Amino acid sequence: MGEYTCSTEQIAQAVRMYDGVRRKSEIGAMVRDLRIDSHAIVASFGEDAAVIQNGSDALLLAADGIWSKLMDADPYWAGYCAVLVNIHDIAAMGGKPLAMVDVFSISNESIKKQVIQGMHDASLQFGVPIVGGHLHPDTPYSVIDVAILGIAPMNGIIYSNTAEADDIVLVAIDLEGRIHPSCTLNWDSATLRTAEEVRKQISVMQEIGSRKLVSAGKDISNPGIIGTLGMLLEVSGKGADINLTQIPKPDLDALGITFEHWLRMYPGMAFILTAKNNNLKTIIELFSKTGMTTKPIGTVNNSGELRIHDDNSSSLVFDFSKNGGVMHLGTYQ
Amino acid sequence: MGEYTCSTEQIAQAVRMYDGVRRKSEIGAMVRDLRIDSHAIVASFGEDAAVIQNGSDALLLAADGIWSKLMDADPYWAGYCAVLVNIHDIAAMGGKPLAMVDVFSISNESIKKQVIQGMHDASLQFGVPIVGGHLHPDTPYSVIDVAILGIAPMNGIIYSNTAEADDIVLVAIDLEGRIHPSCTLNWDSATLRTAEEVRKQISVMQEIGSRKLVSAGKDISNPGIIGTLGMLLEVSGKGADINLTQIPKPDLDALGITFEHWLRMYPGMAFILTAKNNNLKTIIELFSKTGMTTKPIGTVNNSGELRIHDDNSSSLVFDFSKNGGVMHLGTYQ
Repeated sequence: MGEYTCSTEQIAQAVRMYDGVRRKSEIGAMVRDLRIDSHAIVASFGEDAAVIQNGSDALLLAADGIWSKLMDADPYWAGYCAVLVNIHDIAAMGGKPLAMVDVFSISNESIKKQVIQGMHDASLQFGVPIVGGHLHPDTPYSVIDVAILGIAPMNGIIYSNTAEADDIVLVAIDLEGRIHPSCTLNWDSATLRTAEEVRKQISVMQEIGSRKLVSAGKDISNPGIIGTLGMLLEVSGKGADINLTQIPKPDLDALGITFEHWLRMYPGMAFILTAKNNNLKTIIELFSKTGMTTKPIGTVNNSGELRIHDDNSSSLVFDFSKNGGVMHLGTYQ
Repeated sequence: MGEYTCSTEQIAQAVRMYDGVRRKSEIGAMVRDLRIDSHAIVASFGEDAAVIQNGSDALLLAADGIWSKLMDADPYWAGYCAVLVNIHDIAAMGGKPLAMVDVFSISNESIKKQVIQGMHDASLQFGVPIVGGHLHPDTPYSVIDVAILGIAPMNGIIYSNTAEADDIVLVAIDLEGRIHPSCTLNWDSATLRTAEEVRKQISVMQEIGSRKLVSAGKDISNPGIIGTLGMLLEVSGKGADINLTQIPKPDLDALGITFEHWLRMYPGMAFILTAKNNNLKTIIELFSKTGMTTKPIGTVNNSGELRIHDDNSSSLVFDFSKNGGVMHLGTYQ
């Protein structure tokens, strides 16, 4: 039946154990030390991409990197993902990705070729060129980072910190995928799609932004569905109660994974959104046209707590008023 | 007298020995493998920053990193330079720097703090905020990379590849500096200047671009004055003959360095420009107002060779028709 086989408390624990949460204080200190005042910067830390106003345009700038673990497991997939996660950072803001630069530290020639092939293939598929970068040769390790430039109309940006009480929490996700053969925690749908299909999936967020169909949004990244929602709620100063049974999922039995495993996966194409009830139908239809499944999974409230429940029990995942909040530093990761 | 104490041939050799030249083929292959067609990209590899057209605006995107050698020698200065070199990439194109993201690999807590302090201080001095980035903690080495976004009017961009025969080659440089105490190959003027002064020095390139006073330009980077000129000539498909005695320099005897050493230095604020003879006076005056010294050092020609001469001898530095050209891959470094 694909139902989850563990308690809400086990799931809450698993979300809290995510590595990123532990790094929160370290990155927080760094952000404070780097920050300067600048009136052109509309948003930065706390969002998937920084927003720089240029007249009626918002220029979006983000950077994201791939952990060495993934690089060791599958260099091609690491290169592909380095591009993918950056394109998602722009899409999540309702933006159009324009161009990327990469920073590459590498010594092994075979790994290098595979990473470059993965980056190239993702760049070509999504139609976003890599226009420059920096190579550190002969390093004792392999790391790939990408920075991305995007653009959106100033009045069509989707922020993370603007969720409102009584909004419906939505998950939009491409369920037509596979567990990536090199990484059991990666749900890969993008490599199975055509260029036309993935570009539609990215551009639907631009339409949602321009038509103001959502109050807030974020791409689902390494912390998974619940962890990413936690980030969005924390910066919005809100809480939510989530019904785990409503979370969209593929046939987990057929895949041979548990529901807890599914929740911890990094999905290749997925967004968390909050929206007014009367916009749900339109949003679901827009994503549906691109092959993505969208479901309401709960409601935003003013509690400052992220709670999950199923038919039997209920658990607290995060109380944002305490020190156990999720790491949401957005543009600094 | 601060005159150089070695032959033109020794200097030509020293320029050719620059590390970057040797890496040319490696990076060239990488660029070919990454490149995809994209009509919005007006320029990329071969320029200091990529040019992405957005209506009448050019969005400029670049990335540049700091070698681990400098990081080991002086983490504060490495952080400062990571910001400085990126701001120069935008200024060189006639652009206004808007915002940066950084990618930081670090494990040592003390080095980390100093790098962040250096980045922060440069960011504050130049008024260009760091709006996000990515941290790789616990790496077995220390590297800092920065990507930068800038903007320029489409019709006011200064390119590298547009030098024309009979143009005058100019060097604009801030001679009021010091040999950096941590790095004898770094000429540091920027840290000795106020915020107002360095911002003027950066913005003068925007005025020069908008007023179309130059035919081509580049910021002088690690390959030094002659090496950087070589890059500009190579992508322009031109040559030049340079009079070494005309190259602006501080009091080298007082500093205790040779002329050859001076030519190999990375200057903290310097540009190579090519311009029509009738614009020279205006350009020299504009830089002069910002405390920078500008001198004509030779003439562009169609030879495809970069030659240097003094009162006694003449030497070939690069013949761009052969494999001994300089590495100029611009946005990919």
